[in-house]
Amino acid sequence: MMNDVYYMNFALNLARGAAGQTSPNPVVGAVLVKDNQIIGMGAHLKAGEPHAEVHAIRMAGEKVQDSTLYVTLEPCSHYGKTPPCSDLVIKSGIKKVFVATTDPNPRVSGTGIERMKKAGIEVETGLLEEKAREVNKVFFYNIQTGLPFVTLKSAVSLDGKTATVTGDSMWITGEEARADVHQFRHEHDAILVGVNTVITDNPSLTTRLPNGGKNPIRIVLDTHLRTPEKAKIITDNEAPTWIITGSNADSDKEAAFRNAGVEIIKLNTPSISIKGILKVLAERGITSLFVEGGAEVHGSFLKERAFQQIITYIAPKLIGGKLAPASFGGAGFDTMAEVPGLHFKKVDLIGKDVRIIAEPR
Amino acid sequence: MMNDVYYMNFALNLARGAAGQTSPNPVVGAVLVKDNQIIGMGAHLKAGEPHAEVHAIRMAGEKVQDSTLYVTLEPCSHYGKTPPCSDLVIKSGIKKVFVATTDPNPRVSGTGIERMKKAGIEVETGLLEEKAREVNKVFFYNIQTGLPFVTLKSAVSLDGKTATVTGDSMWITGEEARADVHQFRHEHDAILVGVNTVITDNPSLTTRLPNGGKNPIRIVLDTHLRTPEKAKIITDNEAPTWIITGSNADSDKEAAFRNAGVEIIKLNTPSISIKGILKVLAERGITSLFVEGGAEVHGSFLKERAFQQIITYIAPKLIGGKLAPASFGGAGFDTMAEVPGLHFKKVDLIGKDVRIIAEPR
Repeated sequence: MMNDVYYMNFALNLARGAAGQTSPNPVVGAVLVKDNQIIGMGAHLKAGEPHAEVHAIRMAGEKVQDSTLYVTLEPCSHYGKTPPCSDLVIKSGIKKVFVATTDPNPRVSGTGIERMKKAGIEVETGLLEEKAREVNKVFFYNIQTGLPFVTLKSAVSLDGKTATVTGDSMWITGEEARADVHQFRHEHDAILVGVNTVITDNPSLTTRLPNGGKNPIRIVLDTHLRTPEKAKIITDNEAPTWIITGSNADSDKEAAFRNAGVEIIKLNTPSISIKGILKVLAERGITSLFVEGGAEVHGSFLKERAFQQIITYIAPKLIGGKLAPASFGGAGFDTMAEVPGLHFKKVDLIGKDVRIIAEPR
Repeated sequence: MMNDVYYMNFALNLARGAAGQTSPNPVVGAVLVKDNQIIGMGAHLKAGEPHAEVHAIRMAGEKVQDSTLYVTLEPCSHYGKTPPCSDLVIKSGIKKVFVATTDPNPRVSGTGIERMKKAGIEVETGLLEEKAREVNKVFFYNIQTGLPFVTLKSAVSLDGKTATVTGDSMWITGEEARADVHQFRHEHDAILVGVNTVITDNPSLTTRLPNGGKNPIRIVLDTHLRTPEKAKIITDNEAPTWIITGSNADSDKEAAFRNAGVEIIKLNTPSISIKGILKVLAERGITSLFVEGGAEVHGSFLKERAFQQIITYIAPKLIGGKLAPASFGGAGFDTMAEVPGLHFKKVDLIGKDVRIIAEPR
């Protein structure tokens, strides 16, 4: 016998399936049930396309009358690119609605539920709420702060090194962990690295998954515009490249990059502040930022406490060397009392490496 | 219905119960079964005391006739501090014997089994052999190499640091992880640190478990005899302290330490080689060595590839700082190809920290 928790979990899985493809919208899943049978299901797949409830109601056809809807996020109550879902739910004759979590926007939170209740629909809110917020943690964070959700990613040996004393780093982690990184790239709007990473590694920063994948926008922090003009991210045309630079950057170099199709974001200040660039990126529609280092960039995000998630791959190797580089550089903190505390949320083996997903505490 | 695997697992658990208290002997468990009922059980508890089989046979009394013995290690065939167990097994009328693994000493391996077979007992060897070797990995390593089994222990933040840039390290890991370290101290013959750790942290290096625990011998690597005379390990009389020093060490200081009850091991060479000291420690009866750092000591063991196990506690903190210390220092390796590869054997949450137990690959 299936129960409400089962159906809501099913809806959450539908939502998860569209992870990384709905930005700036949330992922949403919906299931319609009548006489303990699923009569419709749907997920929001892409901004501008129908919402989850619309797909599920279409699939159900005439059976929708007197059915129960399980939806992972409160049905909307406003006219956006599509008409309000709460009106469609009312019109379709649905009898009862389970909503996992309300809309995070305080101005609209609860209005969709209110509309349905006024129309005589029984509405229950909060079923698997924690999971539903987790599924949309990026979206909730965006709405509540107006800033991109920042994930800092590192790959280190068991003794915390990212390369040998001579700089050799090919490869720290195994194939499975590297593929896992590409899945995260696929799910992010943008990827960010420091100019030293571009100079040293000349990475392409694209998503290379067996079935393709979405390339994130490539962003380089480059105060003095030192990015080589022949760097892959400048010449390969695989994805947009943005360079964030200080007010003293050379104008000729700037023009050359613009001619090569690169977007130059020149700040008003000679140096780069992390909190400042996050505002700039938010204005340009970036909802999620995947920061891949290097150590100085990670150190800057750490020092400004500007991160919502830390993903660390730990490889079964001991690199050693007092002068071998670590994943976080910069000035650091003087005392343990100042050091940001984390919560280890998930610890998994990915191939032969350990992956720890952590959040600020 | 219990089966052979169940009874051998039971015997292995009896063996594990005596971990850390039988050195230099192996841990051994034995179970006697008749008509599918346990009629006797035993474990070897301490060198010089009866072997596991003796305890089990005593417990069984007259019922031992025609019973089946499950024993985790081949019964001995020689007169040591106690008479040979294989003779006792024969004399007691046991009908069948399951042996998990043979004796690791190639000169005696199989002779106990041979004796029992000749006396008409049915003997099966190899049931849960891998587990049985794991339970006695220190003993097997000692017999096969003549050297102590070396475990390198570290406690680091998620970004691989052991302290802040100013040296603050209180505390990286939580209470549960620190208690876990004391369990390991209890199970080791000796604990080893570098003189810098003694100077900086003034540790007591004792075992502090809720129910007491055995203190390991405390060993300091101190080439130039810089250990402070007022250090806790010199003055507290809680456990023996050995200082390993180079041939140029000051004789007056040496004499002062000897007067304080400290054992000074003066090498023939002005500097200390890890492989050299492992031989010296083996001659003095050390079978297992728990190396707690600091970074230079870990770096030396790493460079000489002189380790059998790595235990790393990773705390949910980001310490940061390019100049903050890491767990392994020293010269390191130039290329990834030279870097020792490991195998992650166990990954667990210990309180809020992650503990990774790794072995060389």
